[in-house]
Amino acid sequence: MITPKTLSDRLARVPASPIRKLVPYANEAKKEGVYVYHLNIGDPDIKTPDVMLDVLHSWDKNPIAYSQSHGEPALLDAIDWYYQHCGYSFITPKNIQITTGGSEAISIALFSVANCWDEVIVFEPLYANYNSYAAINQVQFIPVETTIANGFHLPERNDIVKKITKRTKAMLICTPNNPTGTVYTKEEMDMLVAIAKKYGIFLLSDEVYREFVYDGMKHVSLLSYMQEIPEQAIVLDSLSKRYSLCGARVGMIVSLNSDLMHGVLRIAQGKLSSGLVDQLMASKLTKVEDSYIESVQKEYENRRDVLYEGLKTIPGLIIPKPEGAFYTIVKLPVDDAEDFAKYLLTTFRDNNETVMVAPATGFYANPGKGKNEIRIAYVLNIESLKRSIEILKKALVAYKAK
Amino acid sequence: MITPKTLSDRLARVPASPIRKLVPYANEAKKEGVYVYHLNIGDPDIKTPDVMLDVLHSWDKNPIAYSQSHGEPALLDAIDWYYQHCGYSFITPKNIQITTGGSEAISIALFSVANCWDEVIVFEPLYANYNSYAAINQVQFIPVETTIANGFHLPERNDIVKKITKRTKAMLICTPNNPTGTVYTKEEMDMLVAIAKKYGIFLLSDEVYREFVYDGMKHVSLLSYMQEIPEQAIVLDSLSKRYSLCGARVGMIVSLNSDLMHGVLRIAQGKLSSGLVDQLMASKLTKVEDSYIESVQKEYENRRDVLYEGLKTIPGLIIPKPEGAFYTIVKLPVDDAEDFAKYLLTTFRDNNETVMVAPATGFYANPGKGKNEIRIAYVLNIESLKRSIEILKKALVAYKAK
Repeated sequence: MITPKTLSDRLARVPASPIRKLVPYANEAKKEGVYVYHLNIGDPDIKTPDVMLDVLHSWDKNPIAYSQSHGEPALLDAIDWYYQHCGYSFITPKNIQITTGGSEAISIALFSVANCWDEVIVFEPLYANYNSYAAINQVQFIPVETTIANGFHLPERNDIVKKITKRTKAMLICTPNNPTGTVYTKEEMDMLVAIAKKYGIFLLSDEVYREFVYDGMKHVSLLSYMQEIPEQAIVLDSLSKRYSLCGARVGMIVSLNSDLMHGVLRIAQGKLSSGLVDQLMASKLTKVEDSYIESVQKEYENRRDVLYEGLKTIPGLIIPKPEGAFYTIVKLPVDDAEDFAKYLLTTFRDNNETVMVAPATGFYANPGKGKNEIRIAYVLNIESLKRSIEILKKALVAYKAK
Repeated sequence: MITPKTLSDRLARVPASPIRKLVPYANEAKKEGVYVYHLNIGDPDIKTPDVMLDVLHSWDKNPIAYSQSHGEPALLDAIDWYYQHCGYSFITPKNIQITTGGSEAISIALFSVANCWDEVIVFEPLYANYNSYAAINQVQFIPVETTIANGFHLPERNDIVKKITKRTKAMLICTPNNPTGTVYTKEEMDMLVAIAKKYGIFLLSDEVYREFVYDGMKHVSLLSYMQEIPEQAIVLDSLSKRYSLCGARVGMIVSLNSDLMHGVLRIAQGKLSSGLVDQLMASKLTKVEDSYIESVQKEYENRRDVLYEGLKTIPGLIIPKPEGAFYTIVKLPVDDAEDFAKYLLTTFRDNNETVMVAPATGFYANPGKGKNEIRIAYVLNIESLKRSIEILKKALVAYKAK
């Protein structure tokens, strides 16, 4: 008798989503008739532009045929227009590869720069799904810690450089940052580019929240350094958040490195194409008024203000002022934030309502870190945000009184 | 000065698509005003069911939000209904994971059963993109040859078994087959299942052409063996061909192995979700009349007849009668089919028209095989097919006269 072969070790290493792992508890609460405010997931409630939805209403293509592997031409032109509009006139469609969401863009970029168990430097806390992409692509993340005390900004240059080894192939950053809300300054971007240059490593920049920057700050994109390190700079982008198109899976890889672009096109050919309907819907971005983005940006800034001012009033809670995106990591006056998050869903009710948050441990590459932290996504309207803060405040009192 | 790091070796190993590699020559011909009949790619011209397109026309969800990682509930229910309809009452939504196209389903299945450089037995000629999924997942394909003389049916059991080593984790089959059009018989499926059982290896069955079987033959699905080898059977499926939804990226992994299903759900969580619009469009499959599939099946059978009878009249050309799907591999009376395919695009014109075919070398895992073979996809209407055959015939005469 031969022992049946087991599933692969690498499948076992793919982590469960820390954002979604408490979903069964939330579902139980909902079954009991409890209203749950979702602060755990970044699925915006902002409307998708009508000009995009009109593509669906007036759809006349039949059959729904494959798009091109490189990307649907109308979308490539639109994305090219967008980067021109942002001032990056050196970008052409051949520097753009359409992917099925920003998540695929990040995963393909990791595959492309690193062989198995090569090292990629990341800054933690980091977007939890990065750990999935590392596991799937068998890349070794080398985390550099950023701290709540420093608003999750980058540490000294030497704290980064000392992590570089012979196996280091890249640094992966996210700015504006999910999960911390931090926006890297020009000085920080200068430092990262200088390190990439000096050590000859790739710099991967996830900029899907590019437009979501507050207090009149300006986002500093890796695109503005792309001509300085043309072979090493890779921008990972998505339309999901910018146009409230999360469920339309449209992302992209942008680089001046032509070997990279040829390689990712071969990967794209294997997958045939991204979705035709989603791409054509997204291609209408050229028709979206600037005022749409401005009003969305303003709405999130208002929510940020409400969240920040509200959470500051909770005794013992530590929150740095979020500078961009629509997330923040806060430190709670508890020992085990996951236990508190479960308590919110299973036990605590205020007027039959509660709140769902994401424990922060999953946002660290180092196991055990962030144990008393949670990530909050502020994608709810202002009234719901205010109510969520009230519930959190009461729940912390009740939890500690237990 | 430090040498800049290069891209990964694994990126370099991802092959270019043999189906699309001659596209630049075709584009040149089109620029000159030449009409090109595409026998190279399986993008059907059959209409998508109206009931699916109506989902677009009556779209009222705003924003376009993430779907669930497991799959949009309406689609999971519809797919479950479909398998019940096919007679597999033991399948429930928890045995189904929605993927972004059948291509992703195959890629994730390879990742899940094999560690790096584990072996997977394949039968060549094989669907060219399988070579991409092997490269991306760093799986070692061990090809077992099937021959045109035998209609690309499976060889003797021992020819398969002798390829099994300690590193063998799975066999990957495609029935009805792309690129050969072969449909495995019950005896062949019995043999494969018996081998899987005896050696404790996984059996992965790509059945995206399940409905496309001709001459009154019946397709034998791995689903009918699933309860016999519940931990080892994995079916890879797609709605692309069945409902002419190629550009809507909707595929699925089906298995009774709960560890596998938990693992692939974790992968899906990392990628957040497949496209919402595509999934909701596809979920209307329960409303598609059986007559739709029957008429599509009949149409392809007619095309198969026209192609087979027509190609048989070409001197020196060898074609086994295709039993299913909408592809066939034919042997040409030339030494180098790729050179002939280029000649068709660059040089040969008949009344300012020509034909594009896919050289078969890319459909072999063993380099160098299939050098005088091409793959033909018969997704053109009958008039165009007849004209394509006429052009091929004339071109072969002219090519040999050179």
